[in-house]
Amino acid sequence: MAHIAVIHGPNLNLFGTRETHIYGSVTLEQINQRLHEAVGANHELRITQSNHEGVIIDTIHEARNWANGIVINPGAFTHYSYAIRDAISAVKLPAVEVHLSNIHTRESFRHTSVIVPVCVGQIAGFGWRSYLHGLAALLDHLSEQQ
Amino acid sequence: MAHIAVIHGPNLNLFGTRETHIYGSVTLEQINQRLHEAVGANHELRITQSNHEGVIIDTIHEARNWANGIVINPGAFTHYSYAIRDAISAVKLPAVEVHLSNIHTRESFRHTSVIVPVCVGQIAGFGWRSYLHGLAALLDHLSEQQ
Amino acid sequence: MAHIAVIHGPNLNLFGTRETHIYGSVTLEQINQRLHEAVGANHELRITQSNHEGVIIDTIHEARNWANGIVINPGAFTHYSYAIRDAISAVKLPAVEVHLSNIHTRESFRHTSVIVPVCVGQIAGFGWRSYLHGLAALLDHLSEQQ
Amino acid sequence: MAHIAVIHGPNLNLFGTRETHIYGSVTLEQINQRLHEAVGANHELRITQSNHEGVIIDTIHEARNWANGIVINPGAFTHYSYAIRDAISAVKLPAVEVHLSNIHTRESFRHTSVIVPVCVGQIAGFGWRSYLHGLAALLDHLSEQQ
Amino acid sequence: MAHIAVIHGPNLNLFGTRETHIYGSVTLEQINQRLHEAVGANHELRITQSNHEGVIIDTIHEARNWANGIVINPGAFTHYSYAIRDAISAVKLPAVEVHLSNIHTRESFRHTSVIVPVCVGQIAGFGWRSYLHGLAALLDHLSEQQ
Amino acid sequence: MAHIAVIHGPNLNLFGTRETHIYGSVTLEQINQRLHEAVGANHELRITQSNHEGVIIDTIHEARNWANGIVINPGAFTHYSYAIRDAISAVKLPAVEVHLSNIHTRESFRHTSVIVPVCVGQIAGFGWRSYLHGLAALLDHLSEQQ
Amino acid sequence: MAHIAVIHGPNLNLFGTRETHIYGSVTLEQINQRLHEAVGANHELRITQSNHEGVIIDTIHEARNWANGIVINPGAFTHYSYAIRDAISAVKLPAVEVHLSNIHTRESFRHTSVIVPVCVGQIAGFGWRSYLHGLAALLDHLSEQQ
Amino acid sequence: MAHIAVIHGPNLNLFGTRETHIYGSVTLEQINQRLHEAVGANHELRITQSNHEGVIIDTIHEARNWANGIVINPGAFTHYSYAIRDAISAVKLPAVEVHLSNIHTRESFRHTSVIVPVCVGQIAGFGWRSYLHGLAALLDHLSEQQ
Amino acid sequence: MAHIAVIHGPNLNLFGTRETHIYGSVTLEQINQRLHEAVGANHELRITQSNHEGVIIDTIHEARNWANGIVINPGAFTHYSYAIRDAISAVKLPAVEVHLSNIHTRESFRHTSVIVPVCVGQIAGFGWRSYLHGLAALLDHLSEQQ
Amino acid sequence: MAHIAVIHGPNLNLFGTRETHIYGSVTLEQINQRLHEAVGANHELRITQSNHEGVIIDTIHEARNWANGIVINPGAFTHYSYAIRDAISAVKLPAVEVHLSNIHTRESFRHTSVIVPVCVGQIAGFGWRSYLHGLAALLDHLSEQQ
Amino acid sequence: MAHIAVIHGPNLNLFGTRETHIYGSVTLEQINQRLHEAVGANHELRITQSNHEGVIIDTIHEARNWANGIVINPGAFTHYSYAIRDAISAVKLPAVEVHLSNIHTRESFRHTSVIVPVCVGQIAGFGWRSYLHGLAALLDHLSEQQ
Amino acid sequence: MAHIAVIHGPNLNLFGTRETHIYGSVTLEQINQRLHEAVGANHELRITQSNHEGVIIDTIHEARNWANGIVINPGAFTHYSYAIRDAISAVKLPAVEVHLSNIHTRESFRHTSVIVPVCVGQIAGFGWRSYLHGLAALLDHLSEQQ
Repeated sequence: MAHIAVIHGPNLNLFGTRETHIYGSVTLEQINQRLHEAVGANHELRITQSNHEGVIIDTIHEARNWANGIVINPGAFTHYSYAIRDAISAVKLPAVEVHLSNIHTRESFRHTSVIVPVCVGQIAGFGWRSYLHGLAALLDHLSEQQ
Repeated sequence: MAHIAVIHGPNLNLFGTRETHIYGSVTLEQINQRLHEAVGANHELRITQSNHEGVIIDTIHEARNWANGIVINPGAFTHYSYAIRDAISAVKLPAVEVHLSNIHTRESFRHTSVIVPVCVGQIAGFGWRSYLHGLAALLDHLSEQQ
Repeated sequence: MAHIAVIHGPNLNLFGTRETHIYGSVTLEQINQRLHEAVGANHELRITQSNHEGVIIDTIHEARNWANGIVINPGAFTHYSYAIRDAISAVKLPAVEVHLSNIHTRESFRHTSVIVPVCVGQIAGFGWRSYLHGLAALLDHLSEQQ
Repeated sequence: MAHIAVIHGPNLNLFGTRETHIYGSVTLEQINQRLHEAVGANHELRITQSNHEGVIIDTIHEARNWANGIVINPGAFTHYSYAIRDAISAVKLPAVEVHLSNIHTRESFRHTSVIVPVCVGQIAGFGWRSYLHGLAALLDHLSEQQ
Repeated sequence: MAHIAVIHGPNLNLFGTRETHIYGSVTLEQINQRLHEAVGANHELRITQSNHEGVIIDTIHEARNWANGIVINPGAFTHYSYAIRDAISAVKLPAVEVHLSNIHTRESFRHTSVIVPVCVGQIAGFGWRSYLHGLAALLDHLSEQQ
Repeated sequence: MAHIAVIHGPNLNLFGTRETHIYGSVTLEQINQRLHEAVGANHELRITQSNHEGVIIDTIHEARNWANGIVINPGAFTHYSYAIRDAISAVKLPAVEVHLSNIHTRESFRHTSVIVPVCVGQIAGFGWRSYLHGLAALLDHLSEQQ
Repeated sequence: MAHIAVIHGPNLNLFGTRETHIYGSVTLEQINQRLHEAVGANHELRITQSNHEGVIIDTIHEARNWANGIVINPGAFTHYSYAIRDAISAVKLPAVEVHLSNIHTRESFRHTSVIVPVCVGQIAGFGWRSYLHGLAALLDHLSEQQ
Repeated sequence: MAHIAVIHGPNLNLFGTRETHIYGSVTLEQINQRLHEAVGANHELRITQSNHEGVIIDTIHEARNWANGIVINPGAFTHYSYAIRDAISAVKLPAVEVHLSNIHTRESFRHTSVIVPVCVGQIAGFGWRSYLHGLAALLDHLSEQQ
Repeated sequence: MAHIAVIHGPNLNLFGTRETHIYGSVTLEQINQRLHEAVGANHELRITQSNHEGVIIDTIHEARNWANGIVINPGAFTHYSYAIRDAISAVKLPAVEVHLSNIHTRESFRHTSVIVPVCVGQIAGFGWRSYLHGLAALLDHLSEQQ
Repeated sequence: MAHIAVIHGPNLNLFGTRETHIYGSVTLEQINQRLHEAVGANHELRITQSNHEGVIIDTIHEARNWANGIVINPGAFTHYSYAIRDAISAVKLPAVEVHLSNIHTRESFRHTSVIVPVCVGQIAGFGWRSYLHGLAALLDHLSEQQ
Repeated sequence: MAHIAVIHGPNLNLFGTRETHIYGSVTLEQINQRLHEAVGANHELRITQSNHEGVIIDTIHEARNWANGIVINPGAFTHYSYAIRDAISAVKLPAVEVHLSNIHTRESFRHTSVIVPVCVGQIAGFGWRSYLHGLAALLDHLSEQQ
Repeated sequence: MAHIAVIHGPNLNLFGTRETHIYGSVTLEQINQRLHEAVGANHELRITQSNHEGVIIDTIHEARNWANGIVINPGAFTHYSYAIRDAISAVKLPAVEVHLSNIHTRESFRHTSVIVPVCVGQIAGFGWRSYLHGLAALLDHLSEQQ
């Protein structure tokens, strides 16, 4: 049984109401519910959303005490938060970065992630299912590391 | 009657005491008072100052529930907070970016705003009156959109 | 009583007929009329439009003899006319740069102004009202300098 | 039932023998076999590997006649083949770009994909399972489009 | 019958006498004569040469009143006159940019045209015949638009 | 009588079916037919299309034995194939680069041609007629060189 | 007797457990204890660690009321927090920036500090002793300013 | 006896009144008078000042008919007027570029001259005497060419 | 006895006929013959020339089965074929990159090799003898590795 | 007992007489004397100043024979002498780079050190005391390595 | 009576024998002789040539003791010797930078001088007479400063 | 019989003791001995090593009087000594640049040589044998020039 921290970054609480032509109409609650359904009783998920960079760093730090891995959509922090990068790097938990939209087709500042170099990998472009694939990929990664 | 969120970014609580050769000697309280005087009972202003990026994002999110528009001086966040940009973009409220100083004559990192591309416009260089002009411009904009 | 030179740069004579989705449908004559109405008999406005960089420079030079300040929309000269910049700098009159559109959301070459570093400030994005706000801001600036 | 073209780019025929510290020890045959197992009789997979850019373009063109989507690991072509990009764009089939390694942690030339802007999304960093996740993501995407 | 404004930019009055190893020995009068011969009585050509950016902008503006399209060799203005670009864009007449020399083989500053993005297309490298081909291309374009 | 190699680069076999809002609805066969009609029995045309860079290079090499000049639309190879550039340069045949679309108004990577510096000139933006004008320009060039 | 604010930035609470090959095995508590021992009863130290940029800014603002100077290790905020820079600049307290590792030998994004331009100086590369040297340097600086 | 065109660019008519800490207090009339005194009856000087790029180009063209060389202070046109560069290059008269201030110590945009590559040389930094030295250098150059 | 794959890239089949002022008048057959003469019966050489990137990659792959090392002149592929780079890197054979001309004195795009970082070394500038020196250097390298 | 080479780079012999607003009024002799006083009889210091890059390299080479570490202020060589960098790297002695001024607040070319990547660390901004802190930091470093 | 240090940088001892198409055929001895003739007994000249950067710095330092100004042709040191720049800046003597060739028309690395920002001005392009004009300009400057 | 100047740049006197994983364990004396053995009595070699840029320039100048060519390993001067470049260019002797390591696989500043553009060619990556191959290549070059 794996213990996974799922972290949603800034503005993602607005999923389903915000720019639906980009992000789709599924709400964050629905995404969270679907993730819980996907793992059922096999794995533990603890889910956090925050617009505060510091809260996300604290959450990553605490994950050292209970989690085996992290699924994170850093939102706009993707592009400048070297502090979140250092947090992931410091706790040494495998992390998967996910994005609903294909960030490589949007504004050029969204093409670069300062966080992905310390992650296992990145999944982008598949709407809310990016989380689902990211979670599956992380679980596969964890089972291979054993 | 318009409802306007006025948001002051980091370090702006120090106006009047900080680098007065750049920002002048008017304090934030005085600015806020003059803005209230300017609109009188015609419009509602709710004013927030925070040094926390996350608090500013939360404030923008909450403005969806009561405000018609935003006047924001993002302070130093102007130059790197893609998260605030995304917040403004997500709530779809018209916003006006204001700066006391002429940011285009200062250090080169201050020449670029990552936030103004999702605003109606920008007003910079007129000291505390930049807020006044920004508020007037936003009210004009709102009345034209009706 | 202030004496203000209002200068419209190249192609702005076409306002109202040109790319109305960007610039709106107000004509230059209408803008000028509204500016005159706004100041009434309190201030003198002398308004010039030219597609010739040299004419604009000459106009700025002549303003030394009668004007207290300048409101200028340099049009496309904004992005490369160091000669107009030098003219404003040389005559030592306070100038306000205005733009109808939010130049920061358009083609990247429009993001940079070579002229604003020698101005008091910049107002962009408020349609024809950018002039109105620019004029108000200049008058405020002049009264503060006294 | 979906019909999927799986395309392996240059040097990928050497998987399992080449730089195993980066790519792992699974061979291309094994990857292909696992993909076939994953879809079973539910979907059709046609798999191609080529070191020739032109062959890959031809394969994409032909896919117009039978396939519903493409899973492609363009190998080193990822970084310069605008011709493959144009091929995907021209046939209008949804494509998913996959990479075994986390390309964002390797040499800087590997950080940029000229192909992903015309894809649905990108999955990178999960070893041979990147294909598996890419295939699943594409199938989900196809079922959502219906 | 089409009405075409042919505009020659700065220094082009010196064709035939200037750097003949680059531009050939045909004079501007000869080019103009050949263009008139090419269209005969089928189309109207009005030809302007000026070393003044403002005159070229004025000419483009006036073309709104009588012309169907523009053939323009902006000379050195090609590389920096955003004002001419805006003029073409504002009058909404189809324009073809022509150059006698292959600008892509000369100094690097000549490789970029700030004007061609608002033109139908560009023809460069064929000596005085670039005008001829440009004129033909414009007439074809006009007949296709009908 | 001139002998001309007409070379179509990658993905151009899809003309008429591919992104017709950019390239129009004329097919490659129709373009070829119109080119043959344009020259009639006066000149020989040998036409090649390939998605393979190597085939295009071979075709250029062989043209040394029979052709007087080349009309080439290198497609996406325009932007990175220094090998095609070297091939044209090596065979010393005059070449004209053509593009259906105005490459200067599209994605920035399409603004630069690594091939045009070894060509006589470039014609871009006139749809299928770019070939026609390119062919005419090449024939004029050849007759002038005699 | 001097009053010094010592500020530890994001992730520094993990010292001693995090990437010990870079940062060594001394914990933050041990560093703090050694700093207190170093100054003994001669000077007052108030020490703060936070992963929240806003808390660090607030701490700097409050230091105006009691401190003579600041020793700060901004962690990853070093590289992008213009807001912390503005805070230091606004309170006009002398500050010394310290880093345990030699930031100039690590990833390129760590080579640049946006904060050091408003500090007295920078000390980097001496492990936990960077704090000790930074504190000594600040105290020397303060005694020289008297 | 040499015939020299002396050309003063935009804003230089304001010498003596404009930013005297940079340019000194000598007026343009005084500079012209001193140049005439310097050459006396030995050489002919014809002096032009204009704020119009087109007038400067026309003046250079006309100089072909009577002058042996050019002394030019292009003012702000130094930094972007490729049209003046082409004019000098076209008329094939030796030209010397002069600047009152040391342009290499001012704003970075002033460090580059697009005109000097087609001049004999450049003299900058010696106040009004830059003209005197430039004139002497040109006369020397002319006498050496004979 | 060493077994060496000698690979000539695109357009090199034209040596002796192509730009002889750069490449000299020795043909590829003559180079190959001289290389065979140089090694005599001591070593095996298998020589390939191709204008097809894919063929070169295939040739490198096959060399795993028989060769001890590679001498390669990638021609224009030097500057962009990351696929050839990956091929050399994948087969783990020592390779020496050779160029007839001094690529560092030619067009700037020729200054960079994307392939040499995975080679033992590079020899450039010695005409056809670059191959000879490259072969000798590779044989020395192989004998030192034993 | 440690043996330390203290090396002063070019122009530092002028300390105390040169730009005292930047470097202070302490002379090099005074700095040297204070360093000797600081270490007393506990450690050996050998101090060199040279304006010759070669002499500095020779000094570093010779230090291999007697010294345990190096304190170096490379002066302007900081910014371009890769040869001094290689010398430090080659002798494998721990080195500390010191600067009197805060180089990060001065001209941009002074922000980058090509030497610090091969040093233990850097201390900048504390006037002549930068040497004192650098010496202390080096001695601490040496005692920790034992 | 002025005392002037004339300093010739590296390789300038070869004037008259080196690349005479660029530098002319006058030798360094002849230049020096002509400079002495030019000033006669009115001023003292002390002339130094060195290929050693350190010697040039030493010479500048010593000039503090006897000279009023410096005429320097730094040769290739112009483009990278920040140490010579600092030397000139430190001794506070007015300096004039001279170049025989028009450095702005040569290789791009020659367009930038790191030394001229601390000089009075620059004179380039007039062959050996650049020294003569530089000397005259310096003497004028000195007489104006009195 | 050829006369060859062999020049070793800064830090190369430490070969065999310095970073042997990069440069190998052969000393400079051994390299020199092997070069002498390689040429025997057939050619004259004069070998110089210096850490002083000026000494290397002097050596190159003196070579004009006795040498036919130069083999030079400029060490770290490779990357910034335009003065050595000018020296080689001025004496017009054919030069070959050699490097023991493959400079293209090391730090990015080592990828560019400012000296190779004035050399016949470059040989890098073959350890001490780079000198041997460089010498052979130079001798071949000399015999071909006769």
